Amino acid sequence: MSETQQTSTERRLGQNGIIQPLLTDLYQITMAYAYWKSGKTKDCAVFDLFFRKNPFQGEFTIFAGLEECLKFLTKFHYSASDIEYLKEILPSGIEDEFYEYLTTVSAKDVRLYAMAEGSVAFPRVPLMRIEGPLIIVQLLETTLLTLVNYASLMATNAARYRIAAGNMKLFEFGLRRAQGPDGGLSASKYSYIGGFDGTSNVLAGKLFNIPVKGTHAHAYITSFSDFSELRNVYLEPNGGGTPRDLLQLALTCRKNLLPVFNMVSLEASEGELAALISFAIAFPEGFMALVDTYEVQRYPCRMNTVTTNTKSHNKYRSGLLNFCAVALALNDLGYRAIGIRLDSGDLAYLSNIARHYFTEISIKYNLPWFENLMIMASNDINEETILSLNEQGHKINCFGIGTHLVTCQRQPALGCVYKMVELNGYPRIKLSQDVGKVTMPGCKDAYRLYSESGHALVDLLQRSIEPPPEINKKVLCRHPFEESKRAYVIPSRVEKLLNLYWEAGQICLELPNLQQIKETVRNSLRTLRPDIKRNLNPTPFKVWKNDII
Amino acid sequence: MSETQQTSTERRLGQNGIIQPLLTDLYQITMAYAYWKSGKTKDCAVFDLFFRKNPFQGEFTIFAGLEECLKFLTKFHYSASDIEYLKEILPSGIEDEFYEYLTTVSAKDVRLYAMAEGSVAFPRVPLMRIEGPLIIVQLLETTLLTLVNYASLMATNAARYRIAAGNMKLFEFGLRRAQGPDGGLSASKYSYIGGFDGTSNVLAGKLFNIPVKGTHAHAYITSFSDFSELRNVYLEPNGGGTPRDLLQLALTCRKNLLPVFNMVSLEASEGELAALISFAIAFPEGFMALVDTYEVQRYPCRMNTVTTNTKSHNKYRSGLLNFCAVALALNDLGYRAIGIRLDSGDLAYLSNIARHYFTEISIKYNLPWFENLMIMASNDINEETILSLNEQGHKINCFGIGTHLVTCQRQPALGCVYKMVELNGYPRIKLSQDVGKVTMPGCKDAYRLYSESGHALVDLLQRSIEPPPEINKKVLCRHPFEESKRAYVIPSRVEKLLNLYWEAGQICLELPNLQQIKETVRNSLRTLRPDIKRNLNPTPFKVWKNDII
Repeated sequence: MSETQQTSTERRLGQNGIIQPLLTDLYQITMAYAYWKSGKTKDCAVFDLFFRKNPFQGEFTIFAGLEECLKFLTKFHYSASDIEYLKEILPSGIEDEFYEYLTTVSAKDVRLYAMAEGSVAFPRVPLMRIEGPLIIVQLLETTLLTLVNYASLMATNAARYRIAAGNMKLFEFGLRRAQGPDGGLSASKYSYIGGFDGTSNVLAGKLFNIPVKGTHAHAYITSFSDFSELRNVYLEPNGGGTPRDLLQLALTCRKNLLPVFNMVSLEASEGELAALISFAIAFPEGFMALVDTYEVQRYPCRMNTVTTNTKSHNKYRSGLLNFCAVALALNDLGYRAIGIRLDSGDLAYLSNIARHYFTEISIKYNLPWFENLMIMASNDINEETILSLNEQGHKINCFGIGTHLVTCQRQPALGCVYKMVELNGYPRIKLSQDVGKVTMPGCKDAYRLYSESGHALVDLLQRSIEPPPEINKKVLCRHPFEESKRAYVIPSRVEKLLNLYWEAGQICLELPNLQQIKETVRNSLRTLRPDIKRNLNPTPFKVWKNDII
Repeated sequence: MSETQQTSTERRLGQNGIIQPLLTDLYQITMAYAYWKSGKTKDCAVFDLFFRKNPFQGEFTIFAGLEECLKFLTKFHYSASDIEYLKEILPSGIEDEFYEYLTTVSAKDVRLYAMAEGSVAFPRVPLMRIEGPLIIVQLLETTLLTLVNYASLMATNAARYRIAAGNMKLFEFGLRRAQGPDGGLSASKYSYIGGFDGTSNVLAGKLFNIPVKGTHAHAYITSFSDFSELRNVYLEPNGGGTPRDLLQLALTCRKNLLPVFNMVSLEASEGELAALISFAIAFPEGFMALVDTYEVQRYPCRMNTVTTNTKSHNKYRSGLLNFCAVALALNDLGYRAIGIRLDSGDLAYLSNIARHYFTEISIKYNLPWFENLMIMASNDINEETILSLNEQGHKINCFGIGTHLVTCQRQPALGCVYKMVELNGYPRIKLSQDVGKVTMPGCKDAYRLYSESGHALVDLLQRSIEPPPEINKKVLCRHPFEESKRAYVIPSRVEKLLNLYWEAGQICLELPNLQQIKETVRNSLRTLRPDIKRNLNPTPFKVWKNDII
């Protein structure tokens, strides 16, 4: 690794302080003692970290969390206060020599092989293979699982939203509903990797250099009740000049718009307009407005529903009208508004209405860009909502997605496991009555074989000591559990999936930055046939083994 | 607050470093600028933090996360690097004065009222009421929601498991499947508050002084293949004396046990026994064994299922036999084993089998305690599993619960919201077509009215300026949305739910420790009628308002 690379790796080594060796299950430490007591400090083990089932009823997973795992290895060391705490909770009979041994523990004799972060991954193929002293490798288990499970789940979820949303913009808005602060921060990071365009989470923006997005909340609108609260209504035109009264301009524009919207001015909320004026003055070049604090619009072809207890207030249905008035007023001063956000109601319907008016206004005022104003939707969106909106036909350009994305509501945990497959050179196996839970013994490598068209055909598992499959040569692949299923594959490209990232106490492969990992996700997904990626009844990808394993 | 109290509060003020002012949505900051630009720095607002629906199809919620919110207020301050980052991402036209204003921002003019942490809470009753300068109070929104939502969800989930499990022991084992490291740590903390007896998470034990539990994994068993790997087989008897060969003792015991188990010695795994011997030597006073690495036991009244691909290995069905042999050998040396853990299979059935053998052995060897050995179960348990096991009849004493608990699989997010209810002394309202989403305007207080028997009858919302309801006096309570529903209540006890925790820049009520919060959960739940707490179709608790609100 060159010196510059080293520095760039190190600069990113900051990590949440709670990621430390004691962030583990107690049984790892009791096992460490029992191994130590049995004289097994020199035993060498190989563990595979893998999952058995793709999440979200899908047929692919995105591997993520590798950089965090490597950072953890870098600082894997028990502090004096850790040892002191362990002495308190472990039985008093435990020898001091064991605690002395623990203080010497580090990851320097560990080797970690892994897939590239951001790769598409499949069941039973190791995401990581960890080799080294049995005790140490066992002590790493829980923390590595914690760092991989949620990161991969989140990246996979985001990638699925990206597939559903096609070219629409996607922003992660989930911090407030995430599973704790770090859940929120990880969600921002891994949803960006998985295919999102940005986040509302400012800290994620700062720490990971992710684009951040945000406008205003309903509270901003309700904090204004009339024009008298506008302490300033003047805005300087774009490019300079005498400031002009934006409120008067907007009121004039609104008056002209009333017939377009088939409305009377009594239906328009004064507080809402005041709020939008003040927001436009603050952000004349980035004016984006939440338009559903009262009602978006008089429904032109539906009954106006009246909710009994909202009393007099619900006469307002001016979100769209007020926005358009302010947008036109801004236009008079040389600024182009960005668009609107819809946070409730029938999103397909409302987006069509909004686009309809944008188009009418665009024609009436000869402002072609007005037709293409952004329509962002952000109320309780999930993958299915997007697919359903696509079917209904909508005019949304952009989604802000919270709860369902960041908590992975459809399946909130990925089930990665960490299984010993070899000890002192001999294969080990964990048996189970459940075929799917039987581990494949031995130190294995994994190869992805590609067709001439660039599509991934199969992931092939084989013993690490065997020669890799070769390009343009026939490879016999066998189903892992059904003896009768076998096939010859002639790969046009062979990708070695597991590469050495950690050896001799340091990271030994250059780590990609977030942008590059995001690119890996995109490229890796591109190699999958569409039927493997589709939402409904996707085809499983083949994970087979060679003849010997 | 006395000096000792102050110190004890401060000792606990350490907090995850990522909890900082930028852990928020960008729109809070853009709104802050728009407010500032509109001259609203002196505006005073009241916000309610509340939820609209209890989680898990239940009818109660446990409020948690208060201490974390208060810690956050303590350190609410934008650093120079925060400001620098904001300058990068916000429009270039923003005045330097705004950034100067941001550097002066703190929570010193904020007042925070809250329910006691650990209280039972209901929809629409504020968990917290936050008063202060509009801009500041708005800037706190996202972080407060993040800190309350998952904490309360987790504590509620744990409390539900506790209700389902009655007096059984409950341990949280979910770190590896949690949503990130902090998700795992928070899960340990809030499941303990909600009613769990401990966790496997060592760091949670260290930071929060929670009991930690753990034995060993399947890997420990598979790391031994025969007796030759036992480098030491000698164990000193309890209380001292000449060390004796535990393996020989166990082999003798096992021979004697074969007829009890109706087995032949070929069915017993040598590696498994070796592993258990080594573990018993390491933990003679805390011997607890995982018994399902191969098979727990020859099924006495079912066919032994043979899985085709496990080949010769599955002849072993010795988990229980090997455990009992080692437990009896330990008994010969004066030690009492703790019990077994079952991590797969039909838990009700296997627990009955295990208890059956424990009882037989207890009689045969006249060891009454053997009958009561602990049986812990830990495979993919959720609230419904526990209820179903209860119905089937089982002999489990203790559950280790992971994924479903920590990710709150049944509903992975609580939907707390943060709504402005008053501005500069005037009530504000957010209207919605959805009645359930309409906020109750005004600065409110909440009182819980209790019957003579100590049961909570109703939570009463009323304006803060009104006098509180009085004991033994008739109180008119009205349904919040249905005008016709009203009732008189004569409370035997009145509890003011919202108390002032933060004022003048500091915590102004003594904070309970974790143990006390756990006690609050228990006591608070005890005041609820059983039909409100039950799993199936629980009765909603009444949240009503007085005549004026």
